[in-house]
Amino acid sequence: MEESKREVKHIVLAKFKEGLSKEEIEECIKQFANLVDLVPSMKAFKWGKELSIINFHQGFTHVFESIFETTKGVEDYLSDQNHVDYGNFLMPQLDKFLIIDFEPTKVQP
Amino acid sequence: MEESKREVKHIVLAKFKEGLSKEEIEECIKQFANLVDLVPSMKAFKWGKELSIINFHQGFTHVFESIFETTKGVEDYLSDQNHVDYGNFLMPQLDKFLIIDFEPTKVQP
Repeated sequence: MEESKREVKHIVLAKFKEGLSKEEIEECIKQFANLVDLVPSMKAFKWGKELSIINFHQGFTHVFESIFETTKGVEDYLSDQNHVDYGNFLMPQLDKFLIIDFEPTKVQP
Repeated sequence: MEESKREVKHIVLAKFKEGLSKEEIEECIKQFANLVDLVPSMKAFKWGKELSIINFHQGFTHVFESIFETTKGVEDYLSDQNHVDYGNFLMPQLDKFLIIDFEPTKVQP
């Protein structure tokens, strides 16, 4: 069943500003995760600190992965007031970010 | 069970060079996927074209997501001759790339 379900991943790479405390960063992550409860089209959220072995990560420190069922779902999320408010809270705390969406596809042998 | 299994994601963002044919790009993706059969620590592979609604993806055209169980698994993959050969094949076909690893974590409510 799960294999046939469509999934769009919304990946945010973020570099937090120098000087932010661990608690401030944790609050950003917690509020990001909280959007799952506020935005109907956002189905899941995971995050992780950058753990790269090789130095091709361009200084990004965190990865945020949100799951939607369609690109329309991402669109609804982007325009949702809860997301807009969160963006206004998060952005001033970031040095830089990159956002990319894709639909994970398996290569058939 | 799945929740307790450790997972490290190795994300590659790529921008293919202008002028590559659809077939040449497909061959790059197919050979990337083929590494799952060649490199023991690489557990799964998915890919997708960039589908972003907003323009913060910095020109990257494709996302490649490989799954490992540990960062040691990523390390073994990076030094595996099959991966090295594939990298030598892929890199000249890219305008740019970004590679970042993370361990997807859920935020506990």
